[in-house]
Amino acid sequence: MGDLGEHALIERVVRNFGSPPNDEVWSGDDTAAFGDGLLFTTDLMVEDVDFRLAYASGFDVGWKLVAANASDIAAMGGRPWRAVAGVALRSDTSVEFIDALAEGLASACREWDIGLVGGDFSSGREISATLALIGHAHERGPVLRSGATVGDALCVTGALGGAGGGLLVLQGNDPLGPELDPLVARQLRPRARVAEGGEVAGLVTAMIDVSDGLAVDLGHLTDSSGVGCDVELASIPVDPALRQLRSTDAAQAQGLAITGGEDFELLFTIDEGHLEEARAALAGLGTPLTKIGVITDGPAQIGGRDLDDWRAQGWEHLRGR
Amino acid sequence: MGDLGEHALIERVVRNFGSPPNDEVWSGDDTAAFGDGLLFTTDLMVEDVDFRLAYASGFDVGWKLVAANASDIAAMGGRPWRAVAGVALRSDTSVEFIDALAEGLASACREWDIGLVGGDFSSGREISATLALIGHAHERGPVLRSGATVGDALCVTGALGGAGGGLLVLQGNDPLGPELDPLVARQLRPRARVAEGGEVAGLVTAMIDVSDGLAVDLGHLTDSSGVGCDVELASIPVDPALRQLRSTDAAQAQGLAITGGEDFELLFTIDEGHLEEARAALAGLGTPLTKIGVITDGPAQIGGRDLDDWRAQGWEHLRGR
Repeated sequence: MGDLGEHALIERVVRNFGSPPNDEVWSGDDTAAFGDGLLFTTDLMVEDVDFRLAYASGFDVGWKLVAANASDIAAMGGRPWRAVAGVALRSDTSVEFIDALAEGLASACREWDIGLVGGDFSSGREISATLALIGHAHERGPVLRSGATVGDALCVTGALGGAGGGLLVLQGNDPLGPELDPLVARQLRPRARVAEGGEVAGLVTAMIDVSDGLAVDLGHLTDSSGVGCDVELASIPVDPALRQLRSTDAAQAQGLAITGGEDFELLFTIDEGHLEEARAALAGLGTPLTKIGVITDGPAQIGGRDLDDWRAQGWEHLRGR
Repeated sequence: MGDLGEHALIERVVRNFGSPPNDEVWSGDDTAAFGDGLLFTTDLMVEDVDFRLAYASGFDVGWKLVAANASDIAAMGGRPWRAVAGVALRSDTSVEFIDALAEGLASACREWDIGLVGGDFSSGREISATLALIGHAHERGPVLRSGATVGDALCVTGALGGAGGGLLVLQGNDPLGPELDPLVARQLRPRARVAEGGEVAGLVTAMIDVSDGLAVDLGHLTDSSGVGCDVELASIPVDPALRQLRSTDAAQAQGLAITGGEDFELLFTIDEGHLEEARAALAGLGTPLTKIGVITDGPAQIGGRDLDDWRAQGWEHLRGR
């Protein structure tokens, strides 16, 4: 399995499952989508792979699991609605951890108006938690990754690289200080851009959330749409808190913004004629919108380098995989 | 956590999540149910807790995970529809296992007309798999555990104890032989009574699937309904294949039928006036219906002994927990 890689693994498994009806989207987008506007997604977190108890509390784990799922719904322009959870606990897991996990799940569910309606427990040699989330698409339908057309502006919400910087801090690469709290928070208590996704759902042509890093997720969007892109390096909104890291210079901060992952910002394409409307709508939520490039019929590039090059030098190892 | 027990654990977690709207059912029944007839459930299987690779193939694990979830939908009288899966694999998990797991998931999904529409992978020190399943309730609404009334007949589909017997065989308590194949199949490749649940959904007053054993699941039904019951020992349909076990006498076979678990038969209550209609409907599917007792306003008993006594001597240890 180590040789296979997640992408090949998914393709290997998915070929067993046939094709969806015409009015449905199955695996290959942020979430599945059905004709009646229902969205359906799942995310899994395993101890020592997706989180470490050395720096993540039970609350953090619960919160992030909900946020990651909600972000997938947000990336379709939809609203999260109801969730179920499957949790495996170690025999030596403390009641305090369980209570904190439940509080983290519950707080994040309140934050994004999700009802946690059921679950299942088992035991194991490591803690793991899986959330499955259903939601409702925007009235104009789910926003797919595949709708980008040549000439569209390529935009991103907020700032990138902060979650990766937070992981560097938590792993001890940088001496802890309160000036680093914003980075740590981005890693442990990420925000899903649910309101933002709903605001722009009727305006954009394609959307995805930045969970695996800009280079990887932009690649999903351009591949799905059958287009290329030109992204200007200088236009990428690097998280300003990364300047506080002693271990990281400006070039490395930019690298984190491109390949760091888990920022859960929204990356979307939009006709230039709708750009100012989207910018105003997001400003109403206090969320910046940055145009980072354009969709082309050429190769998919950031700063003149192919996405594959960026992905190859990626920061995946940061995530402990 | 070891001190807490699953029931206390669930209560501890659930109190964080508030109350459902009036037209919804959240945790506490086989699945959650929403006003528009949508059902939502999840089940989790962890290596060496819920299955052992010494006797279960990847196909078996995938099949059983789907069957256990589909059975929860069947117990509401509903039809399964779409699923997502979260799977953690060990770094040394073979590609052959992954392919077999995918084939088991896919075969069971075809069996019960389920579309597997998405998923997430991670890695771990043990294999685990979580399925979340949505379905549609019967047009007359979801069948809850809580509708039993005094005087109702208490009935079960098929036969009980076979899955527990199969586990005894797989654990080496009995020398393997082809005459034991039906028991092994009940343990490794269980059937969800989806068609049966749909046939009786409009007739019954309460229903649950027998996943934790008759004594435990009957207790859930009577507790939820605020009633008692009298079950006659001789009327319980003990799986006839248990007679082939050399390690188990008739009394032990009856014990397995009462406390063995994982048979995924349907246990329901029904007004006597509808009993023959239900029997005929199930006969059309080739599935026996057995009346095993009546709902009372007294204690909940099997063979004159309280359910708690049966549960206390239960066969839970068989399941490796």
